Amino acid sequence: MVRALLTDEGSRRAAATDRSGHRPATLPDAVVRATTVEEVVETLRWATASRTPVVPRGAGTGLAGGSSARAGEVVLDLSGMDRIVAVRPDDQVAVVEPGVLTADLDAAAGEHGLFYAPDPASAAISSIGGNIATNAGGLRCAKYGVTREAVLGLDLVLADGRRVTTGRQTVKGVAGYDLTGLVVGSEGTLAVVVGATLRLRPRPAATATLAAHFDGLVAAAAASAALTAAGLQPSVQELVDAAGLEAVDAARGTALRSRGAALLLVQCDGHGARTEIDAVAGVLAPFATSWRATADPMEAEELLAARRAVLPALERTGDVFIEDVAVPRSQLAAAVAGVQAISARTGVRIATVAHAGDGNLHPVVVVERGTPVTEGAPWEAACAVFDLALALGGTLTGEHGVGLLKRTWLHRELGEDSLALQRGIKAVFDPLGILNPGKGI
Amino acid sequence: MVRALLTDEGSRRAAATDRSGHRPATLPDAVVRATTVEEVVETLRWATASRTPVVPRGAGTGLAGGSSARAGEVVLDLSGMDRIVAVRPDDQVAVVEPGVLTADLDAAAGEHGLFYAPDPASAAISSIGGNIATNAGGLRCAKYGVTREAVLGLDLVLADGRRVTTGRQTVKGVAGYDLTGLVVGSEGTLAVVVGATLRLRPRPAATATLAAHFDGLVAAAAASAALTAAGLQPSVQELVDAAGLEAVDAARGTALRSRGAALLLVQCDGHGARTEIDAVAGVLAPFATSWRATADPMEAEELLAARRAVLPALERTGDVFIEDVAVPRSQLAAAVAGVQAISARTGVRIATVAHAGDGNLHPVVVVERGTPVTEGAPWEAACAVFDLALALGGTLTGEHGVGLLKRTWLHRELGEDSLALQRGIKAVFDPLGILNPGKGI
Ligand SMILES: Cc1cc2nc3c(=O)[nH]c(=O)nc-3n(C[C@H](O)[C@H](O)[C@H](O)COP(=O)(O)OP(=O)(O)OC[C@H]3O[C@@H](n4cnc5c(N)ncnc54)[C@H](O)[C@@H]3O)c2cc1C
Ligand SMILES: Cc1cc2nc3c(=O)[nH]c(=O)nc-3n(C[C@H](O)[C@H](O)[C@H](O)COP(=O)(O)OP(=O)(O)OC[C@H]3O[C@@H](n4cnc5c(N)ncnc54)[C@H](O)[C@@H]3O)c2cc1C
Repeated sequence: MVRALLTDEGSRRAAATDRSGHRPATLPDAVVRATTVEEVVETLRWATASRTPVVPRGAGTGLAGGSSARAGEVVLDLSGMDRIVAVRPDDQVAVVEPGVLTADLDAAAGEHGLFYAPDPASAAISSIGGNIATNAGGLRCAKYGVTREAVLGLDLVLADGRRVTTGRQTVKGVAGYDLTGLVVGSEGTLAVVVGATLRLRPRPAATATLAAHFDGLVAAAAASAALTAAGLQPSVQELVDAAGLEAVDAARGTALRSRGAALLLVQCDGHGARTEIDAVAGVLAPFATSWRATADPMEAEELLAARRAVLPALERTGDVFIEDVAVPRSQLAAAVAGVQAISARTGVRIATVAHAGDGNLHPVVVVERGTPVTEGAPWEAACAVFDLALALGGTLTGEHGVGLLKRTWLHRELGEDSLALQRGIKAVFDPLGILNPGKGI
Repeated sequence: MVRALLTDEGSRRAAATDRSGHRPATLPDAVVRATTVEEVVETLRWATASRTPVVPRGAGTGLAGGSSARAGEVVLDLSGMDRIVAVRPDDQVAVVEPGVLTADLDAAAGEHGLFYAPDPASAAISSIGGNIATNAGGLRCAKYGVTREAVLGLDLVLADGRRVTTGRQTVKGVAGYDLTGLVVGSEGTLAVVVGATLRLRPRPAATATLAAHFDGLVAAAAASAALTAAGLQPSVQELVDAAGLEAVDAARGTALRSRGAALLLVQCDGHGARTEIDAVAGVLAPFATSWRATADPMEAEELLAARRAVLPALERTGDVFIEDVAVPRSQLAAAVAGVQAISARTGVRIATVAHAGDGNLHPVVVVERGTPVTEGAPWEAACAVFDLALALGGTLTGEHGVGLLKRTWLHRELGEDSLALQRGIKAVFDPLGILNPGKGI
């Protein structure tokens, strides 16, 4: 049937899991590396006829086990469908295949003075299809929203091989139920995304960036709350805790930790970027031990590099499990303090970075290399963080998805009646349960 | 059963239709004016037991016949559930009952230096529940998005009386399918909204406003496209054509038409509002016959008043049917020219206002008072406009919804497979078809 059907062990192993730390006990039966919509259609028709479960896969950078696959399943790898079909500056839209890397689309938009707003820290290595399937967030979504806000329309292949188009080419539209929004974040369980019409935005006229150091997380969180209270709207607002700073210092030879136990990075953009960053400085100064602002893009990149370096730096010191809880903004301080208390109580090392503007925390559990992160003490610590988030009125996952790993927790957040509706929707799209069984809802 | 069951003819007549111009041939059997969630639950339990169709109703300002009701149906009027339960400035959220008027929420947010972004021209008279059910847009959604972007979570009552909560209190979250987004825009066909957690935004530090006059619509549309190309991001960008200006002049004694055949109103906000409006002026000037910019809020209100006056002014001259098509931004000029051609060809009077930044046009069909607008020549002209929008790659409805009136057109935009999925979703939420039958999908 399909040309690119791979059954060698190397291909199956490479497609068996993602970046979550989850280790499946078995390998998938085969990998289909699709390069055309027709191959996707054919694969799904065959899967439906033979009742074979199919795991859609983008770039495999997921952090929830969403593209993990096991024996009896076939992986449908979309990374080879990587054409940017069109960038239309007059409409501020792009039309892409799912395998396009996030950063590549952003670069293509840049050639027209535009940008693609959702910028997960993984932008250089994650695919648009995976971003859509997980409703990925990123640094800039404090101002510009998550992937959901950037998707205007989708080309889908259903489990039985039927092709369906959702949404539109226009910025606005309310004809029919919002199937586009339903598929965004559905983690490959409702349909395979084979094309997308995405919203681009004009590159801001200017940006201005500020780094502030604080004695501790409580002061940093209070400063972030003060920004909100002052009505400021930074495009980026990132928090790094002491453990994160220490890892960065060790990896890059910097001395960030010596300046304080928490770092807050703030970026403003638009015609008033400088005025707004001055206002940010005025609000933060009373809380900070020191701060520095710049309108120079190179210097700004340097400041932001510290944030981007946290995860790679932690990964140098051990295996990691990256959590992704979100809490109401007012609970940010309570959440970061709670995570530190969990780390102290359990003895499990946890470093925290947070998209502070959204109340979205990434507590990173770090274990000795080779230690499984999804069982034993590390997992118990992770579960304590889930508990904490729910107790603070938050959610289990701000942007990474439920995948495999948070599934048993989902009913606690959603409740039975909501889950029943969701199962009903799944059955409408995929009555035989072909697509990514055991993931998401 | 429910306290507020009204069966007198006055109540039934008042609840029989909306502002679309649709005139139902019969009256609904009764109206339930609910003031508590329990009354909604009781009503729907009874409706399910007795298989009685229920038409949810907010403020009745809809323009698609969505809350029109007829014999055999009961209207569930939510306008009495009008409490603003909480405004939480530290989280920038509000919790409201569905009957709250849009402008009242915005005013309550204003007391905390915040605002509620979606501002339909009907804000003073429409309800939040109706805004959610239609995914209402407004002037500011050029920058801040439509109602969908402002809804974080919903309290719902299903057709069988079960209560379900969707979404969250946090800004971000991806646990489970996006039921919140599915219900937004579902026109009362999936569930009754009895509560909502809404996102508020900080009031911009400054605004600056510009009014530009043009020889004709083509020049105005070209100017709007030039703004997009220049990467400017006004919060408001409204276009009024000659017929609209003439009506306003007649109603308000102004002389707008004498300055040109089209008016474009642009507002910028934020710390760089003045700088950005200067940039706007620089881009528009070569296209315009004249323009005026101001940073004075009172003067700005005066400029915007012309836009707000168009509809009431047209309504003084006859009965109206307000269309609501959207096209890709690059097709704006083609769309406005096409509408004028339809008016010339059919002899039906059509004035157009447009949310130019979103490619969303409201051609307003005006007929002699007493003439039905949803049949005969006026309706044929309206249908020609639907045709035009689809031919230009657009949609039948940018923000008003499908309701009753655009139903027969829906399959042309969506196609059979998409409609089948939508019917499947409807059956999951409302298997007996109790809620608003014959509306939306
Ligand atoms: C260093 C690092 C930093 C990260 N930072 C962020 C961050 O800031 N924000 C964030 O949100 N995430 C972040 N992530 C997580 C990850 O990059 C995102 O979840 C990303 O969206 C996954 O994309 P992918 O192409 O790798 O998808 P995969 O991992 O391949 O798949 C993810 C899910 O999407 C499904 N899927 C993939 N492609 C398709 C398709 N075409 N059709 C249907 N379903 C599909 C899969 O079945 C799976 O359920 C980070 C990951 C790493 C390793
Ligand atoms: C002068 C004027 C200007 C307008 N300008 C705009 C504009 O700029 N942008 C725009 O988007 N619209 C505009 N509209 C249209 C209208 O105001 C919107 O559609 C509004 O959202 C309807 O709100 P409502 O409370 O009046 O709802 P209704 O008309 O009562 O109902 C509308 C739909 O929502 C459903 N519904 C209502 N409440 C609930 C609930 N609690 N739960 C479930 N379903 C419910 C109804 O069944 C119906 O299908 C305008 C209307 C007028 C008259």
